[in-house]
Amino acid sequence: MKYGIIGYSGRMGREIDALFREKGHEFALGIDDKKAEIVSNPEVLIDFSLPFALEKTLDLISKYKCPLISGVTGYTAEQMNLIRALANTVPVVQSFNFSPGIQLMLKMTRLLKESLKDWDVEISETHHRFKKDKPSGTAKMLAAAVGREIPISSLRLGNIPGDHTIAFGGLGEILSISHRVLSRRTFAEGVILSADFALRRQSGYFTFTDVLFQE
Amino acid sequence: MKYGIIGYSGRMGREIDALFREKGHEFALGIDDKKAEIVSNPEVLIDFSLPFALEKTLDLISKYKCPLISGVTGYTAEQMNLIRALANTVPVVQSFNFSPGIQLMLKMTRLLKESLKDWDVEISETHHRFKKDKPSGTAKMLAAAVGREIPISSLRLGNIPGDHTIAFGGLGEILSISHRVLSRRTFAEGVILSADFALRRQSGYFTFTDVLFQE
Amino acid sequence: MKYGIIGYSGRMGREIDALFREKGHEFALGIDDKKAEIVSNPEVLIDFSLPFALEKTLDLISKYKCPLISGVTGYTAEQMNLIRALANTVPVVQSFNFSPGIQLMLKMTRLLKESLKDWDVEISETHHRFKKDKPSGTAKMLAAAVGREIPISSLRLGNIPGDHTIAFGGLGEILSISHRVLSRRTFAEGVILSADFALRRQSGYFTFTDVLFQE
Amino acid sequence: MKYGIIGYSGRMGREIDALFREKGHEFALGIDDKKAEIVSNPEVLIDFSLPFALEKTLDLISKYKCPLISGVTGYTAEQMNLIRALANTVPVVQSFNFSPGIQLMLKMTRLLKESLKDWDVEISETHHRFKKDKPSGTAKMLAAAVGREIPISSLRLGNIPGDHTIAFGGLGEILSISHRVLSRRTFAEGVILSADFALRRQSGYFTFTDVLFQE
Repeated sequence: MKYGIIGYSGRMGREIDALFREKGHEFALGIDDKKAEIVSNPEVLIDFSLPFALEKTLDLISKYKCPLISGVTGYTAEQMNLIRALANTVPVVQSFNFSPGIQLMLKMTRLLKESLKDWDVEISETHHRFKKDKPSGTAKMLAAAVGREIPISSLRLGNIPGDHTIAFGGLGEILSISHRVLSRRTFAEGVILSADFALRRQSGYFTFTDVLFQE
Repeated sequence: MKYGIIGYSGRMGREIDALFREKGHEFALGIDDKKAEIVSNPEVLIDFSLPFALEKTLDLISKYKCPLISGVTGYTAEQMNLIRALANTVPVVQSFNFSPGIQLMLKMTRLLKESLKDWDVEISETHHRFKKDKPSGTAKMLAAAVGREIPISSLRLGNIPGDHTIAFGGLGEILSISHRVLSRRTFAEGVILSADFALRRQSGYFTFTDVLFQE
Repeated sequence: MKYGIIGYSGRMGREIDALFREKGHEFALGIDDKKAEIVSNPEVLIDFSLPFALEKTLDLISKYKCPLISGVTGYTAEQMNLIRALANTVPVVQSFNFSPGIQLMLKMTRLLKESLKDWDVEISETHHRFKKDKPSGTAKMLAAAVGREIPISSLRLGNIPGDHTIAFGGLGEILSISHRVLSRRTFAEGVILSADFALRRQSGYFTFTDVLFQE
Repeated sequence: MKYGIIGYSGRMGREIDALFREKGHEFALGIDDKKAEIVSNPEVLIDFSLPFALEKTLDLISKYKCPLISGVTGYTAEQMNLIRALANTVPVVQSFNFSPGIQLMLKMTRLLKESLKDWDVEISETHHRFKKDKPSGTAKMLAAAVGREIPISSLRLGNIPGDHTIAFGGLGEILSISHRVLSRRTFAEGVILSADFALRRQSGYFTFTDVLFQE
């Protein structure tokens, strides 16, 4: 497929570009706040930029009328509405975490929250020292999956790509689920799955959970 | 509820008695090979005695016509048949492991094995230095839940009551589930759940898995 | 030895009493804000009460002229001075954590802080849901052993007796030390070691580190 | 410093080159079995090539009279003698593991083995599925550091670069040290430390342990 990347020179942008090339896909467009490289019309747009760039993203989708895969975090409620509105005309896959393991972790968490209503729950996440947001978007998704107020501990340590643990504690036992990213390539693989999925849709708003478990 | 305990002064018997009292239930009967304490008619009988005491258990059920929660291990096939026959007239919940956490761990393992067919799986368990069997029965249950040959690492360390971990590893990420017993109280909690469950049934043979996930 | 306990009916008080009896020592005195039980003159006084009871402790030491083992937390600077003054006349062993493992963890932390000056450090501790202070005194001791500002994550989960981890993270690797209490008996054993140590001294202020590593 | 690399285009060679550049050091020389790039006279030579290239290494040291940092594995006894002879005229640092964390883990293990003679010890290591040897060489070094027979559990899981844990267990508590490699960068950092160390020496044979703990 011909792909375009918004947030092209960011860490995830480069990782995605490298994997798409490796898999034989064709680079069509790369855009950043500093530069733009346009080779051809993209069949899918992948956005790993920052919230302030949303207008640019909307312009590009309106121009190319192609699916959007969005991994941008930190949108306001208004910006989220714009993304959802977009899904009326093109397929949109939006997620804060494109790792299959995290999706399974969310699924298990939903399963446990019913059975362990009276147990304490604690979420902890550890990331590299360069990560600026606290807690991670994934930790917030885990808390949302439990559906009640959950404390989140955020550790910043060396160059850890991303560890998450959710622990359920009763008076006699502890049950926990842990996830550890070994390399950012994991997310890039999730983006490819999402692009494949989106290209088979006409329009609609989807999450990475739909990509993995629908169909 | 009014409860009776067979194997009253054993380690599990005392733990169960303590938790039932704490939860406001009413002690009705406590029986042992040495003594019997009968206060009133029990609404449920809990048996954590030994196989040789089965006749006594059958007598008591026949007298009180109440549900049986059995955690006795080591019955012969014939004795098992007697237990199952009992289930024609009263509800029987029988299990070798009344920890809710382990049951949930088994359930999650079954869920993951479908999604992670191509991933590596490793099970490890750590128990106190006095444990004689290797690997633990629970580790074997976990391996059986995956449904293929899984390596099990067994560690013996200090006085650890029982840790189990099952880890699934892909090339970009690791997903694992861990369980840790803090005290025998956990099994007593499983017995309370089972008693509640049995009191809402007319008859039938059930396992602890039914207690947790049926209805 | 003949022992007295201040804070006799608290959780640690009862644990200490049980272990001293088990080891064949002789109960001499048990005091609480509610009641006092005096059998004979103690050869050592063990204090696991609260800061407000310090006056009572000073009275008892002045009366019996015996060593003091103090595990009281939360003293003011002034109260700490009174404790130190006491050490001019009797041996005093004071610690916020009588576990040998934690002392070794502190020792290793001091060893690492030199070598890993440029690494990130994160401390996390997990305790039962009933624990009121946050972070734990032990976590604060670990941070002090590193000698710079260290973030501490505090988790409250089920009935965990006490887990502590200190992790050092560089860009290429993570090194961590973890400690897990299996039962409060650990602390009672540290108190016995301290009492033995104090009985061989004339006077002086000691920590549990001295008990373990001096001599 | 001006550095030269023998085995320049190998995996470790490139990792070392990248880190030295990042730290502001100056590339002087890069040599391989296929090509040689010489910019200026190196102040230190780093060798991560293969045993057959030893002659070339000796030539270069004889020419530049600078320290050698050697991470080559698989030398014969004779070749080892040549390396040691070299140390009469220049400083040589030779090691099979340039990770500072593993060296510290070994040091702490030696410290604990005295204090925890009566405790159980368990070592476990987890590596990627492609690793052929079992247990890892590092796990064997850890066992040797304890100085008695220690069970080692080896897990093979996904693409884990290298996890090691040594756990000491008493009846009341567990103390453990864990190490996790995040990337090969860790070894490159050890090489920089070694180069700094060697530049402050006239001659002599040193291991990475000397680099970390001498002085």
